[in-house]
Amino acid sequence: MSSVPLQDFDADQLAQFHEDIKRAFEDLKSKNLKLDLTRGKPSSEQLDFADDLLALPGKGEYLAADGTDVRNYGGLNGIEDIRSIWAELMGIPVEQVLAGDASSLNIMFDVISWSYIFGNCDSTQPWSKEETVKWICPVPGYDRHFSITERFGFEMITVPMKEDGPDMDAVAELVKDPQVKGMWVVPVFSNPTGYTVSAEVAQRLAEMETAAPDFRVVWDNAYAVHTLTEDFPEVIDIVSLGEQAGNPNRFWAFTSTSKITLAGAGVSFFITSADNRAWYTNYAGIRGIGPNKVNQLAHARYFGDAEGVRAVMRKHAASLAPKFEKVLEILDNRLAEYGVAKWTVPTGGYFISLDVVDGTASRVAELAKEAGIALTGAGSSFPLHNDPNNRNLRLAPSLPPVEELEIAMDGVATCVLLAAAEHYAS
Amino acid sequence: MSSVPLQDFDADQLAQFHEDIKRAFEDLKSKNLKLDLTRGKPSSEQLDFADDLLALPGKGEYLAADGTDVRNYGGLNGIEDIRSIWAELMGIPVEQVLAGDASSLNIMFDVISWSYIFGNCDSTQPWSKEETVKWICPVPGYDRHFSITERFGFEMITVPMKEDGPDMDAVAELVKDPQVKGMWVVPVFSNPTGYTVSAEVAQRLAEMETAAPDFRVVWDNAYAVHTLTEDFPEVIDIVSLGEQAGNPNRFWAFTSTSKITLAGAGVSFFITSADNRAWYTNYAGIRGIGPNKVNQLAHARYFGDAEGVRAVMRKHAASLAPKFEKVLEILDNRLAEYGVAKWTVPTGGYFISLDVVDGTASRVAELAKEAGIALTGAGSSFPLHNDPNNRNLRLAPSLPPVEELEIAMDGVATCVLLAAAEHYAS
Repeated sequence: MSSVPLQDFDADQLAQFHEDIKRAFEDLKSKNLKLDLTRGKPSSEQLDFADDLLALPGKGEYLAADGTDVRNYGGLNGIEDIRSIWAELMGIPVEQVLAGDASSLNIMFDVISWSYIFGNCDSTQPWSKEETVKWICPVPGYDRHFSITERFGFEMITVPMKEDGPDMDAVAELVKDPQVKGMWVVPVFSNPTGYTVSAEVAQRLAEMETAAPDFRVVWDNAYAVHTLTEDFPEVIDIVSLGEQAGNPNRFWAFTSTSKITLAGAGVSFFITSADNRAWYTNYAGIRGIGPNKVNQLAHARYFGDAEGVRAVMRKHAASLAPKFEKVLEILDNRLAEYGVAKWTVPTGGYFISLDVVDGTASRVAELAKEAGIALTGAGSSFPLHNDPNNRNLRLAPSLPPVEELEIAMDGVATCVLLAAAEHYAS
Repeated sequence: MSSVPLQDFDADQLAQFHEDIKRAFEDLKSKNLKLDLTRGKPSSEQLDFADDLLALPGKGEYLAADGTDVRNYGGLNGIEDIRSIWAELMGIPVEQVLAGDASSLNIMFDVISWSYIFGNCDSTQPWSKEETVKWICPVPGYDRHFSITERFGFEMITVPMKEDGPDMDAVAELVKDPQVKGMWVVPVFSNPTGYTVSAEVAQRLAEMETAAPDFRVVWDNAYAVHTLTEDFPEVIDIVSLGEQAGNPNRFWAFTSTSKITLAGAGVSFFITSADNRAWYTNYAGIRGIGPNKVNQLAHARYFGDAEGVRAVMRKHAASLAPKFEKVLEILDNRLAEYGVAKWTVPTGGYFISLDVVDGTASRVAELAKEAGIALTGAGSSFPLHNDPNNRNLRLAPSLPPVEELEIAMDGVATCVLLAAAEHYAS
């Protein structure tokens, strides 16, 4: 791009540009839009892929492969019918995999909560007895993760999320502090950057020495198979990596079918070591009698096997890829020449991370709101919603149809440009 | 009954009786039984009543009455389709009712856990900051309740569960202690006695002054509509009672469809005041995004309305009543004349509470186990499994077919008599 970046415009050029873009923004407002780019929700088209599931397991169908009547009480680990499909899909031993209710976020909250109240299986005391609990948060990251550690009052320490994963030099330094008890990471097609943890970074996470014996990595593999291309990412058997490195209980790994079948009614998976599983079920068995096995059987029948899961994911890719392309095309066409933004180009997942001119992200969100376009609040990908540079926005292209998405993103581009013009003019 | 009680037998009579019953026990053992009376699980026949549910909501069926797509994320309160059926069934305002995942026990654990970590909406500090938390436990009661308060380290104080509910004089005295933060109660067809809280006892619970402002009654109405007769019990609108008495947040009430549709895959309900609901969803919204609404819609379609629920419950009554009659008949025929046991005669619920000769309950369970009949462990209806008189056993007639139940109960009667004979002979 040989064009002049906005920040190098002279005063007259900038005034003219500001005038033009203000008019474009007024036009935008006059359209009275009501569009939503806030959350990574699947679209109706995607949810329709699982239509058969709404009638499964089907009348008279209630026996798991091992003869368990899934309708009755019991079975804290979930049924092997669905656990074995996930083990095959992720190339891990079936024993590692527990199948739960719909939400893996629920289990993440619970394991942190129970570590806080009771201590985990490597704790010398409950985390609530520590003077401070510190938690490593790669940024930008997933807002709901940060909300959990915020609620428990943990001190959240950010490290950069790089293209190959969390900045490991920073992490390795931080875990020398025994009060650092854990970290969040979305290892594949990370929310919101789309970055994927490399084998090297995974190995360093598994091997690194931590001062806290009960340190845990919440390895939230929410987008493990959520490709936007023909290729599926290699799944790292992170629990076995930890075991081989002499840190068998380091990883609490999670995934779910939320963005494979039904966002609010899928099956969650908790993948971890034998000791962590025994610790977990010891509390889960007090909290209740077991997960919804009928839904697990329905899912097992729906998929059939691991290839059945991949077949569904190809449909999602076909639905989502044009939306991501459209967003990237608009960002390119409208913003690139002015040097007012940078964005990630993910090959999977649900988000695009957009960095605008420093100091203007909240203004962009405000302008978009004025124009009837809901964006995730500026700063939401940072602990306490505190983006120190006020520059990051998370774009979620999945929910709207592509025609609406085009209108919304064109509007967002206008807002980015207007906020930048205001910034440089002031 | 004009017979002589076993304890009044002279030495020769007792020796002869002991000899005879020992032989009967050896006969029993030689049958190599493998029967299970441990848990209140519905039978296959009962689970079959919900066969249609296994294919619901059905293909293309995913819109709640208010237009919500139940497949997607969101909706912490659950969908009104099922909440309104429960409101109608229980004669309470729909606003009071939150619908959740399959297990109400999960929610009970969570509200106690969150009160412990963060405090509830009337707490001046989290319960974990109290020197001691004390909890009132009507006995005999539900073992899984006591396991929760045991896990949190609460001091469990027992009060007698009488035919009209917990001994209110004892309760009113205990709640003068500000460290007494709550109590368990199963108000209708209580586990294991089958007793039901009277309107007067409910009123006293609602009105009583408690020293702790954040005192809570866990009103676990698990058997609200679980009649064994033609009549349904009157449902007490306990939350409104509390409100009218000036203690609006006193009750956390629960119920579920576990023993109406599918034991492990039903819908749970949390019924409580506006402040308690706001407090709960404030944490539930950090723990996750919302319950499984697809399962809630499936249930709403399955029932249609409150009368649909009652129609299902009549089928359960028709299946369960003969089993209860059989157990009571055997207890009458085999034990009454000897004066070695007392038992409850429930008109609903899942259990019969059997008191044997003081000091012999654990021996009865041990003998039954030797004979291949699994009984819930002696003492399990008491906190810490500590039945101070070692006399209570919980009988769960629901799971086995009636022919097996007959064999099992006849065996249990033999064990009760043998243990009594051993006791008086020693």
